[in-house]
Amino acid sequence: MSRIAYVNGRYVPFAQACVHIEDRGYQLGDGVYEVCEIRDGAFVDERRHLERLARSLAALRISEPMPFASLRHVLRETARRNRVTDGLLYLQITRGVARRDHGFPDKPVKPSLVVTVRALDRKKIEASAMAGISVISVPDDRWGRVDIKTIGLLPNVLARQAAKDAGAKDAWLVDEDGFVTEGASSNAWLVTKEGVLLTRPSSNRILTGITMTVIKEVAASLQIRVEERAFTVAEAKAAAEAFLSSATQTVMPVVAIDGSPVGSGKPGPVTMRLREAFHRRAEIGLRII
Amino acid sequence: MSRIAYVNGRYVPFAQACVHIEDRGYQLGDGVYEVCEIRDGAFVDERRHLERLARSLAALRISEPMPFASLRHVLRETARRNRVTDGLLYLQITRGVARRDHGFPDKPVKPSLVVTVRALDRKKIEASAMAGISVISVPDDRWGRVDIKTIGLLPNVLARQAAKDAGAKDAWLVDEDGFVTEGASSNAWLVTKEGVLLTRPSSNRILTGITMTVIKEVAASLQIRVEERAFTVAEAKAAAEAFLSSATQTVMPVVAIDGSPVGSGKPGPVTMRLREAFHRRAEIGLRII
Repeated sequence: MSRIAYVNGRYVPFAQACVHIEDRGYQLGDGVYEVCEIRDGAFVDERRHLERLARSLAALRISEPMPFASLRHVLRETARRNRVTDGLLYLQITRGVARRDHGFPDKPVKPSLVVTVRALDRKKIEASAMAGISVISVPDDRWGRVDIKTIGLLPNVLARQAAKDAGAKDAWLVDEDGFVTEGASSNAWLVTKEGVLLTRPSSNRILTGITMTVIKEVAASLQIRVEERAFTVAEAKAAAEAFLSSATQTVMPVVAIDGSPVGSGKPGPVTMRLREAFHRRAEIGLRII
Repeated sequence: MSRIAYVNGRYVPFAQACVHIEDRGYQLGDGVYEVCEIRDGAFVDERRHLERLARSLAALRISEPMPFASLRHVLRETARRNRVTDGLLYLQITRGVARRDHGFPDKPVKPSLVVTVRALDRKKIEASAMAGISVISVPDDRWGRVDIKTIGLLPNVLARQAAKDAGAKDAWLVDEDGFVTEGASSNAWLVTKEGVLLTRPSSNRILTGITMTVIKEVAASLQIRVEERAFTVAEAKAAAEAFLSSATQTVMPVVAIDGSPVGSGKPGPVTMRLREAFHRRAEIGLRII
């Protein structure tokens, strides 16, 4: 079966899915996006993803291309047409097509909306989680508003590529004071020797993940204490456990940082307990929808 | 006559000029661009624009979509098909189309190339220059490598829009120490009471304009001294004259900053002398091509 994409009002074969060269997303990075896990045919934490999308749009003063009730229908229809019940949803909204100029168009144009879905290789992700992944640290040189989920991801691209070049899976970004902000497309976590979860509090220096938010709730349900404060790379290397969180990878154990093993050098017990509880919650949550 | 765009090997009607939704320029901001003035049928400072393009591509490890000799032919052919002899050339290269993933594609893909031209309303620009423009200052919250001419322009978009909202034409960006870095899509200049030109030296905090580079040469030919150092907003407000430089606007007088008049509140004599000499040089330069 060939893939179908939703592009500005039409369901089109993926190979022919295109946008105009003067779409402001293409020329100016003037747009936002969301990635959401599809599990058993349901969009995991859909409401939170849509709330964040609304915040991103408002921050950039991009209007909603359609009411969110209609958008939810488009998401479902895109998944249905692709027969994807387990995978990833990608949704992108840009300010629309206009003659290239930095300022917003004088006459508002219709925002562009693109939706795609794809199946996810869960076995491969599960195998990564069983082995744990390694990360490197790189300076965080992104702009000042990474709390908005924009498509201006080149610094993240370069950080991820630096990790690949170094034989690692991801990069943890480090601010000018030596504290980890987050991963290239994930949030960063430690488990201290006292069994406390550490993660950086929300600010304009991180993109607060939906998965991150849910993990805090899952931790509370497991009576694991969460402390929200920034940590250094040295602290991360000396931690009992480390992991990262994202919609795609959920709770992913980090077993080495800059080549130094974290804890035992294997996925830690607190991390794996969280991973299991997170997945259980997603499944239970979906059953009661 | 309808416009024609060059897109990935084909000359197509502008309305139908499109790129795939998984072009990494659209989803990740993974690309670079150039804007070049076309005057009397020639590309002003073409060699320098192409040299900078090569540097941008190398910095991001994007390969050249075609030899530069062929690229120069495409630029000319695009201008010819649009019958534009005075206007602007826009050229964008992205890493190409690949399944969305932050790291570079494992198997290299062909970079995307888009070229457009448009006529320029020189009378309107000339009228702006005669009156001078006003700018506001806003914090520079861009990423750490703005010396690479990437399409990740959202911070510039927001700065320019802040200027529009305030009734000004452009925004001057101010670093964390209070020094002006540059404009939203231009370089920033002062003329001191001693008649010395001030502009910020090249670094990773500014995009060194081709026009900026040429102005330095023009100033030398006029025996106007240029001092390359950063200046504050207060210094700018107290300067004898101020202006900005870009391929589109060449030498554009700035007569007010944050609502305070600069000097006499009118375009200054040194600025206008530079503007005139810059245009004369462009015309002479083109005649001898």
